[in-house]
Amino acid sequence: MNTPTHLSRRAFIGSVAPLAGLPLLGSWPYPSFATEKFTVGAIIESIMKEVDGAPFPRTVDQLRTGKLDQEVTGIVTTMFPTMDVIQKTADLGANFIIAHETPFYNNNDETDWLQNDTAYLHKMELIQKHKIAIWRFHDYWHRHKPDGIIMGNLIKLGWEKHYDPNTPRLLTLPKSMPIRAIADLAKNKLGISTVRIVGNLKQECTRIYLAFGYMDSRMQIAAIDQYKPDLILSGETREWETIERVRDGQQMGLNTSIMVLSHAVSEEAGMEYAAQWLQPKVPGMKITHIPSTNPFTFY
Amino acid sequence: MNTPTHLSRRAFIGSVAPLAGLPLLGSWPYPSFATEKFTVGAIIESIMKEVDGAPFPRTVDQLRTGKLDQEVTGIVTTMFPTMDVIQKTADLGANFIIAHETPFYNNNDETDWLQNDTAYLHKMELIQKHKIAIWRFHDYWHRHKPDGIIMGNLIKLGWEKHYDPNTPRLLTLPKSMPIRAIADLAKNKLGISTVRIVGNLKQECTRIYLAFGYMDSRMQIAAIDQYKPDLILSGETREWETIERVRDGQQMGLNTSIMVLSHAVSEEAGMEYAAQWLQPKVPGMKITHIPSTNPFTFY
Repeated sequence: MNTPTHLSRRAFIGSVAPLAGLPLLGSWPYPSFATEKFTVGAIIESIMKEVDGAPFPRTVDQLRTGKLDQEVTGIVTTMFPTMDVIQKTADLGANFIIAHETPFYNNNDETDWLQNDTAYLHKMELIQKHKIAIWRFHDYWHRHKPDGIIMGNLIKLGWEKHYDPNTPRLLTLPKSMPIRAIADLAKNKLGISTVRIVGNLKQECTRIYLAFGYMDSRMQIAAIDQYKPDLILSGETREWETIERVRDGQQMGLNTSIMVLSHAVSEEAGMEYAAQWLQPKVPGMKITHIPSTNPFTFY
Repeated sequence: MNTPTHLSRRAFIGSVAPLAGLPLLGSWPYPSFATEKFTVGAIIESIMKEVDGAPFPRTVDQLRTGKLDQEVTGIVTTMFPTMDVIQKTADLGANFIIAHETPFYNNNDETDWLQNDTAYLHKMELIQKHKIAIWRFHDYWHRHKPDGIIMGNLIKLGWEKHYDPNTPRLLTLPKSMPIRAIADLAKNKLGISTVRIVGNLKQECTRIYLAFGYMDSRMQIAAIDQYKPDLILSGETREWETIERVRDGQQMGLNTSIMVLSHAVSEEAGMEYAAQWLQPKVPGMKITHIPSTNPFTFY
């Protein structure tokens, strides 16, 4: 796919106008035009330079497949590096996936327990066939200031101007919105078909606690007491922990509600934003965001 | 509420016909008619007699509030002992809740981290005001043969005749059903408004893997490889673990799908069944099942 003709066409489009809907950042969208070559390791280093305290002694952000000295032909950012995302990466002629979440169905990306798992074996075959490097960009992206996942979502929701670095997880809206309107906004801007809510759709909300992705329940429950948010915007949470605490609170008259977006779609915007954020650091490199999408059908 | 008049009326109804929709088991429904008195401890002992290997050295099935020598005025079975369930228990004149799940938002019912939590403090006040004993009936009910939660669900679904004690979690239907029909059945019989599915609603299923409640993801993923079920019937699961493994499997052509019912409603039938199962062991005792219901609104 990554033929000179194709590149010329993209460069030509780029010279006329940026692609619709995306800001012109650095040299983007002039893909693979530069003479500079990048290895996987060099790209990871350029990302870590932007994060205070990096490299962390313990982090899940490790190279899970491929090699640090591998030359990169194109980058894909995504939420979950699913089989489909890996195949589409190969189809694009790219060989480096920067994924927020685990390829191997566990946060630490352990693989010893998967040595006979049909899907794992097939996935590794696919990865090795196309020589795909996969690096997790989870801890560093959350620790970036501002948290890249939160900021990606806020930009999509049109809420980035309400971001307060002093309370990065607590957003205060200038004007209250009912839960139903917040759900409509999230569904519309983040591409979600259905959300799950513990609370009343008519409840007015000003204080929104941001818990995209998965958040430890004890931290979340402590935050309910500390911040008394009207609404928690959650990606995924445990039902016997946070959900029951929110329900009990409502049954005693407290007004913290929770909206569960689903894990994948609650962080996807943050990885789309990562693609734009990364572009000026790797001039000329083609970076594509491939959404892993919501796995669920609601019926 | 538990006045002699009330009791006489219930006994009178009971002497004419069993309450609609419930089988006549033992002395049920002749509540509080016997002269025998039961303590919390005696009731727990009579339950444990029915479970091989009980008492277990380590189990979450502990008395979480109240006292073992407390005389029981009435029993309530439920899934989650929510604020509402506790209030309704008091309104019934009962003082012993047998709950499958945690009152304190964590599986081990630890409370040290909750000492300043508004909902916990209010819940304890409510419990102490009404002198409610709460005992977890989780591990013993699952370890009962057959697993009481599974059997409660199978009876509701009309599937109990397909239960095979050799493969208690794998059900083989005599005739295949499409996922849509299984979802309709579950929604209708278990009182669920919406389910989440990874899979195609038209897919025909014969082999159903039963994972009501929450199940460890590594066990569940191993079971996918071992049993190759057409469908996993799940209560709650982690999206970055089981859900992504199921999705990857489908993207490579495997046909295991998953239907997520929600935690509370996926085990409620098992606790309703517990009320019936327990009745002959405590003749004359009034046992009421109070569903904690699904906390979610789907929008």
